[in-house]
Amino acid sequence: MTNLNKLISAFINVCGEKNVCLHEPSVGNLEEEIVKDCIKSTFVSSVGKYVDRFELEIAGYTGSKYAVAVVNGTAALHISLILAGVKKDSEVLVPGLTFAATANAVCYAGAIPHFVDSEEETFGICPQKLDSYLSDTCDIQNDVCINKKTGRPIIAIIPVHIFGHPCKIDALLEVANKHNLEVVEDAAESLGSFYKGKHTGTFGKLGIISFNGNKIITTGGGGMIITDDKQLAHLAKHLTTTAKVPHRWEYVHDQVGYNYRMPNLNAAFGCAQLKQLPEFLQSKRGLFENYSEQLSGLNGIRLLEEPSECSSNYWLQTIVLDEPDQELRNIILTALNEAGLMSRPAWTGLYKLEHFKECPKMDMKVVNSLEKRIINIPSSSFLCE
Amino acid sequence: MTNLNKLISAFINVCGEKNVCLHEPSVGNLEEEIVKDCIKSTFVSSVGKYVDRFELEIAGYTGSKYAVAVVNGTAALHISLILAGVKKDSEVLVPGLTFAATANAVCYAGAIPHFVDSEEETFGICPQKLDSYLSDTCDIQNDVCINKKTGRPIIAIIPVHIFGHPCKIDALLEVANKHNLEVVEDAAESLGSFYKGKHTGTFGKLGIISFNGNKIITTGGGGMIITDDKQLAHLAKHLTTTAKVPHRWEYVHDQVGYNYRMPNLNAAFGCAQLKQLPEFLQSKRGLFENYSEQLSGLNGIRLLEEPSECSSNYWLQTIVLDEPDQELRNIILTALNEAGLMSRPAWTGLYKLEHFKECPKMDMKVVNSLEKRIINIPSSSFLCE
Repeated sequence: MTNLNKLISAFINVCGEKNVCLHEPSVGNLEEEIVKDCIKSTFVSSVGKYVDRFELEIAGYTGSKYAVAVVNGTAALHISLILAGVKKDSEVLVPGLTFAATANAVCYAGAIPHFVDSEEETFGICPQKLDSYLSDTCDIQNDVCINKKTGRPIIAIIPVHIFGHPCKIDALLEVANKHNLEVVEDAAESLGSFYKGKHTGTFGKLGIISFNGNKIITTGGGGMIITDDKQLAHLAKHLTTTAKVPHRWEYVHDQVGYNYRMPNLNAAFGCAQLKQLPEFLQSKRGLFENYSEQLSGLNGIRLLEEPSECSSNYWLQTIVLDEPDQELRNIILTALNEAGLMSRPAWTGLYKLEHFKECPKMDMKVVNSLEKRIINIPSSSFLCE
Repeated sequence: MTNLNKLISAFINVCGEKNVCLHEPSVGNLEEEIVKDCIKSTFVSSVGKYVDRFELEIAGYTGSKYAVAVVNGTAALHISLILAGVKKDSEVLVPGLTFAATANAVCYAGAIPHFVDSEEETFGICPQKLDSYLSDTCDIQNDVCINKKTGRPIIAIIPVHIFGHPCKIDALLEVANKHNLEVVEDAAESLGSFYKGKHTGTFGKLGIISFNGNKIITTGGGGMIITDDKQLAHLAKHLTTTAKVPHRWEYVHDQVGYNYRMPNLNAAFGCAQLKQLPEFLQSKRGLFENYSEQLSGLNGIRLLEEPSECSSNYWLQTIVLDEPDQELRNIILTALNEAGLMSRPAWTGLYKLEHFKECPKMDMKVVNSLEKRIINIPSSSFLCE
């Protein structure tokens, strides 16, 4: 492993000698103006022109036919899972390496997360390992994939594009197809990331995007469900707006619905942010290049690069330590954070959390190794300026 | 029943000859300024000074020791029920006459709504009828109230202050105490309403407030959990922020948490609105007086007035038809809406909705009658100006 001081110097050369967060939004006059217009209209809540506009613009940008704005990415995932047919006491395949919300949403739907391993290149679910695992562990009965160990149906799989890098989605779609699984794509982190020219989140039956404060664009808090299926889009809007049956005045609901609307105030903010997405993408790519240059002489670490045939949004810049150097992770984290450069490790493997310990899982060799070696480093787009 | 034309004229005398909504927020320069400050700070998302300030100010205003800001009133209720000990397959007493969210939140917690009847004066749950019903239907076993018919435990009751009018909360607390029920108070509609000088929402173990766009003050979308219990307040914050265990950098969660934070952007808006609450309350009381004056000569209808010893926020102005005139409801609704005065009936009794038909319920005589006779009329505070 390379000299620690050299490493810290490299980071300071990129970020400057100041305290920097892991990821801060870039916010300016455009947001002020558009939010002012929204406030002047008095339509700040659940209905308003900015919700419609933001939905149309996200659909347009991602190339998805429909987009439904919701209160956050977790809510988007919850509803998408319900719409994909996930039921109480069924199982959903979830990567072991992802933010807790991916597995939490499965629980909200009454289902059980079933954790699967990742691959080293993109940190996404490993298609080959998954295929072989499902072939060993599951049976197709009446067109449903059944977990032979638990007897429960496995309804869906949630591929996640980790840190904004497209996972091997083509191969995962093939595996899902072979084993009769619905695909709900978690593109919470990957707005602006494309796999072979097609936007992430548009490969599955439904996809979701997050606009939390730490994402590439933000609405304060917010999320989006994207799909090409008109009926599912209609149901998504229905379910996220308390499942009220349209009527001139009567209040009738046709099922247990959710209060998951995105307020117009937040959608207005999002419209301003989306306008700047091309600049943010360029800056984040520039930041990657700066890190790349500064880290080029150092051994034992790899800067995470976009997969081949993909264009990543470089949401969170990431270094990965070589396996022999993994015990340096906490030393580097301490040094970086003490130098004012906010950094963090990957999430703890979800299958290790107390409340998920009893969930089914495959062998987790790659995630077990990755979580000891990943460090996310300062990634705000303005760091490139 | 009085002449329909006279009735419509009375309404036009109050609201003016223009199209008016049922309830619109009053929004002005204060909101613009404070939201601009929030945007300039770049802290628009889940952490920020306005979230802290809004929580403190709501706690101060309501006289509650703690307040936890969340994404909407439904989310506030969901978490409050969990914290009150509501578990999968238990029952929660819910008024038959309330917005669907009250019962939906019970379902989110995996429990079953058990519908109870209201009383004619405040539209809240009838304490006497409830006491007698519970004495007949339930047994206390090991300190738990057990529904003898279903065998399930009844854990909690949700008194709702309908349209902003305090229900008979003292008597309901007594009944709850007698039958070992936790009280989670749904004050979604009653910010600014006091029962014997004490703010609604502060009587139960936990209370909730909504800041949806149609409420007396709004944050676009938002809610608040209020409680005097420090431990519950801490858990409420923990559960609504993904249940992450505090650590310098590790991502460990100790249970299935929720993404229910209120964004700082919305909290900023709420701070501006809350400053104007005293004016809104005065205007809405003035509006009540205007309606009262105009409707005074008309027979067969009652304008809903604050209960004795209470101060109501007069959130939604309401007329109630006498029973013999109930078939006029749709005629009046049609005439009012055609005159541009947006009006609506009460919610459909929740126990009548298809998905709640199998839920336990008591005799619903009063709600059955009320839902045929209630009309909410234009209620925006600026209508008084």
